[in-house]
Amino acid sequence: MVDYEKKELLYRGKAKEMFATNVSDVVWVHYMDQVTALNGKKKVQMTDKGTTNNQISSLIFSDLTANGIPNDFIKQIDANNQLVKKVQIIPLEVVIRNFASSSFERKFAVDHLLKFEQPVKEFFYKSDKLDDPFINDSQIKALNIATQQQLDQMRDLALKINQRLRTIFAAMQIELIDFKVEFGLDQTGEIILADEISPDSCRLVDQKTKESLDKDVFRKGLGELVPVYKTVLQRLQKVEGHN
Amino acid sequence: MVDYEKKELLYRGKAKEMFATNVSDVVWVHYMDQVTALNGKKKVQMTDKGTTNNQISSLIFSDLTANGIPNDFIKQIDANNQLVKKVQIIPLEVVIRNFASSSFERKFAVDHLLKFEQPVKEFFYKSDKLDDPFINDSQIKALNIATQQQLDQMRDLALKINQRLRTIFAAMQIELIDFKVEFGLDQTGEIILADEISPDSCRLVDQKTKESLDKDVFRKGLGELVPVYKTVLQRLQKVEGHN
Ligand SMILES: Nc1ncnc2c1ncn2[C@@H]1O[C@H](COP(=O)(O)OP(=O)(O)OP(=O)(O)O)[C@@H](O)[C@H]1O
Ligand SMILES: Nc1ncnc2c1ncn2[C@@H]1O[C@H](COP(=O)(O)OP(=O)(O)OP(=O)(O)O)[C@@H](O)[C@H]1O
Ligand SMILES: [Mg+2]
Ligand SMILES: [Mg+2]
Repeated sequence: MVDYEKKELLYRGKAKEMFATNVSDVVWVHYMDQVTALNGKKKVQMTDKGTTNNQISSLIFSDLTANGIPNDFIKQIDANNQLVKKVQIIPLEVVIRNFASSSFERKFAVDHLLKFEQPVKEFFYKSDKLDDPFINDSQIKALNIATQQQLDQMRDLALKINQRLRTIFAAMQIELIDFKVEFGLDQTGEIILADEISPDSCRLVDQKTKESLDKDVFRKGLGELVPVYKTVLQRLQKVEGHN
Repeated sequence: MVDYEKKELLYRGKAKEMFATNVSDVVWVHYMDQVTALNGKKKVQMTDKGTTNNQISSLIFSDLTANGIPNDFIKQIDANNQLVKKVQIIPLEVVIRNFASSSFERKFAVDHLLKFEQPVKEFFYKSDKLDDPFINDSQIKALNIATQQQLDQMRDLALKINQRLRTIFAAMQIELIDFKVEFGLDQTGEIILADEISPDSCRLVDQKTKESLDKDVFRKGLGELVPVYKTVLQRLQKVEGHN
């Protein structure tokens, strides 16, 4: 068994720090006790936020592995840290929407939580400089961000992830409104799911109380964030059989 | 031969008035001596603007008919008027870009007039209330604006139109930067090209002088618009053999 050692900081994002390890294609991910919104303009430190998201994302990625979705997760190390396969991130945020909310709702003036017959699929170009613009297939190809085949594969994987997440969340009495995922190319050039899946990147609503169980609590100042995330984690642990 | 009579006004747009005729599926189109920009916020009356665009669009639609592109054009009646087949407009603006300009250039911070290897295809949802938002296939289907088959057909027709327009404009020493078209469903449910193709809806650059030969002259206050449109018409008449 390899003993992984944490080496130099590769990248400090808004929610995670990525460190090199002694193994070239393995990254050490540290989930920070920090939450941001509005592309980093709103930023607050919160005890237990990192460990809660680390545990949630670890459980979800393990579940997805068991369900045949290729991803970067290797293992959780401790409360705030995990190991993942290093990938070359494709600079696209892939968004799947089951119900209308946020930007979709505003842009098209539809009812809040309008249910879509088929999930809506959107790409956003990950570029802080350009403010992550909404982008279509044709523009993605013109800018050499990804090939048509890669786009089709990402959409296909995102829909499979949606299927599985809806099943998991339904068992937790939670409705999955929408979510964002990132994909990357592994050492063999295969597209795999990367980054995280947590209440930072999903919009979740309690089926009974209709309350938000995600980062909207922070974005909209609806109350304390960490207790809400902990509720999600507890329900997830129950469903995944980890107590 | 039917003698068409102009009946009641159906719609007054920013560039054209649409009138009913004595024939139920035929519309009388009056090209107005008016030009607008910024979604109507900037509006100016201009002698000869209507007749120039009517002639340009009539010549282009006739050429497209001869080249197998199904469209709504029946015939030019006189200087400012033409007859077209009435269609049910699909509320999408279909934009094809050969070179980067305007919104694309700003959104993605690329060089002005960057040449695309393949034409870029975009849809915008025709909705004054929503300010004509950029929209993708998945959103179009979720909002029941068009089916996937219709979207593929519109894209296919738009690319064929692009091919033919580039050939025509090249013969006029003009580079076609980008253009916008609208499609509609005819009486049989078939998708056909509708509306107009003119310097109001195309971005054109003189190959030698690199000057704009389109509505940008008005949008950017670069000089008198009608003389520029008349230049385009004269070159087009020469190429189409109408003198
Ligand atoms: N397996 C992986 N290999 C390499 N990079 C990864 C992997 N998974 C995620 N990343 C990248 O590591 C960073 C994680 O940090 P974080 O999520 O805090 O970033 P962020 O603030 O959301 O900003 P951004 O995503 O715009 O870089 C992201 O840039 C993400 O794309
Ligand atoms: N063959 C056709 N049958 C029915 N309607 C048509 C046909 N061709 C074009 N139209 C519609 O007629 C109107 C033409 O007017 P005009 O181009 O001035 O409108 P506009 O100011 O551009 O506004 P908008 O396109 O947003 O309605 C447009 O609404 C166009 O979609
Ligand atoms: Mg992130
Ligand atoms: Mg118009």
